[in-house]
Amino acid sequence: MNIFVDAMGGDNAPREIVKGAVDAVLEYNIALTLVGQEEVVRKELSQYTYPTESIRVLNADEVIGFDEEPVRAIRRKENSSLVVALDAMKGSPDSVLISAGSTGALLAGGLLKLGRIKGIKRPALASAIPKENGVTLLIDMGANADCKADYLEQFALLGHVYYQSVLGKENPKIGLINIGAEEEKGSMMVKEAYQLLKHSGLNFIGNVEPRDIPTTEADILVCDGFTGNVVLKLLEGLSSYLMSGIKTAIMGSVKGKLGGALIKDDLRSFKKQFDADEQGGAPFLGVKGGIIKAHGSSNAYAIKNAIRQSIKYIENGVLEKTTAAIKEHAERGE
Amino acid sequence: MNIFVDAMGGDNAPREIVKGAVDAVLEYNIALTLVGQEEVVRKELSQYTYPTESIRVLNADEVIGFDEEPVRAIRRKENSSLVVALDAMKGSPDSVLISAGSTGALLAGGLLKLGRIKGIKRPALASAIPKENGVTLLIDMGANADCKADYLEQFALLGHVYYQSVLGKENPKIGLINIGAEEEKGSMMVKEAYQLLKHSGLNFIGNVEPRDIPTTEADILVCDGFTGNVVLKLLEGLSSYLMSGIKTAIMGSVKGKLGGALIKDDLRSFKKQFDADEQGGAPFLGVKGGIIKAHGSSNAYAIKNAIRQSIKYIENGVLEKTTAAIKEHAERGE
Repeated sequence: MNIFVDAMGGDNAPREIVKGAVDAVLEYNIALTLVGQEEVVRKELSQYTYPTESIRVLNADEVIGFDEEPVRAIRRKENSSLVVALDAMKGSPDSVLISAGSTGALLAGGLLKLGRIKGIKRPALASAIPKENGVTLLIDMGANADCKADYLEQFALLGHVYYQSVLGKENPKIGLINIGAEEEKGSMMVKEAYQLLKHSGLNFIGNVEPRDIPTTEADILVCDGFTGNVVLKLLEGLSSYLMSGIKTAIMGSVKGKLGGALIKDDLRSFKKQFDADEQGGAPFLGVKGGIIKAHGSSNAYAIKNAIRQSIKYIENGVLEKTTAAIKEHAERGE
Repeated sequence: MNIFVDAMGGDNAPREIVKGAVDAVLEYNIALTLVGQEEVVRKELSQYTYPTESIRVLNADEVIGFDEEPVRAIRRKENSSLVVALDAMKGSPDSVLISAGSTGALLAGGLLKLGRIKGIKRPALASAIPKENGVTLLIDMGANADCKADYLEQFALLGHVYYQSVLGKENPKIGLINIGAEEEKGSMMVKEAYQLLKHSGLNFIGNVEPRDIPTTEADILVCDGFTGNVVLKLLEGLSSYLMSGIKTAIMGSVKGKLGGALIKDDLRSFKKQFDADEQGGAPFLGVKGGIIKAHGSSNAYAIKNAIRQSIKYIENGVLEKTTAAIKEHAERGE
């Protein structure tokens, strides 16, 4: 099992990334590799007590910033933490790289350095949206702004394998995000995707309207990457807007302040359900290797959870299962 | 001024529709026409006291249901409230039709019976999303699931004229919904729309990311109808999900219940900001006549507000101004 953690990526790098890695080796009793400027990483590590053989440091002098053009950055910065890690992973099916750095660079790096699984048209980014009793996996949440219907069918298959393997539910229910419940609703692309999904052999439950996303019974929601990104970011933005709006409204009156103090605990446990840090990161599915995009603002806890997710990813053989499923699906279609 | 109200459309028709019409004639001192099954409408009207000359009833025996195929329904049901009203409006620039019935039938009816303003490629549905200090107009919110970049440029122009005329703000700020802040982000269509908007002469402020929709400084948000519908319906669905979730969480403990009672008033005034009933309905812009789609669940208060909106629409000459703006824009582009 080879878990690589990009020590230099993210708003809280390297401090929180390194701390998350230490917490993970202690809690899960595993070994992993931190990739980044060795001196900086070792200095962070020196603060903690842990079995030293369980954390290896792979030196990478360069860092890719959030504002760099992804493909150019991957090509030019051969000594960046991202490129060094991807080169080390190559050809090893039991590897995962976790990074909280630039999404664009991570996706471009995965595609250029690891390549696509045979038969995959477009790899996709999947994000687990927390809901009352579990999570909904949203795929694609932003890797492909322009999509064709057959990409969406593959996203469903990628999500199916991942959900079964990592989230542990047999035959997960698949919904298609659409602006109407009926089969004939939506854009031309989505209508075509509906027909493909209907005959895909997957557990397709039909269209899911946006208003029902927070409560849907679907385990997996399929859409193009533009729509997926709109959904995910709007969920984040509106939740935080409403929560802070409610707080401000309450704090404006004495009665409200008193009430606010009384409901604080209940509200906190309600909010905890939707804590993105609990979910680990967003897997980039369809490339020849495990890639997990952690949120840019990840703290040590989020990184530790992304490492737990990586362990499941490797132990359950997501890569091999995906390769087999794509092959089988292609043969069935012939 | 000819205001037609579809008495038969919507979940609460005819009762709430008729009541809203009566409230409006009393409050705004105007005359209007209720269109629907005369006997039913008159029976509802008989409950109220109002200047009888201010409400005319136009008989229409048929009703178009929510589940009917729109184009077929418009063609076959010549005696439906929708078709009778549209026929009565034809050729009169100071007419508006309000309906809380089937959106599809209303849009199809507007297109088939009134036609497009010369030069308009695709009429679009605009919805006012309430925010802290005013509203953001989202256009297109569902009329066109498949769009080209130049449609989006026209949506911006339609929104611009409507916002200035009805919502009363000179040179409103226009944002493009996109999955990144930078010019080169997004789908091919959105990238092209960015360039068109940049050179449109309108007050274009660039991309607006979905997480910023609740707090955006843009007065108008432009997008394709698929994205717009996703945004609007997700806003509705998530708000009500969070509000009811918070309530359930609080009511689960004695302390929470007590706190809940104390914050009730503050919470109510916070929620009132986002009351869709305050906003009237969604105007269908670009057709040769005023069409306002009221929410299917509209009550009398929402209908009364849609009538107030119609008065502004007519008094401020939205139709003439739109026709002139499209003409001017076409000439400028030549």
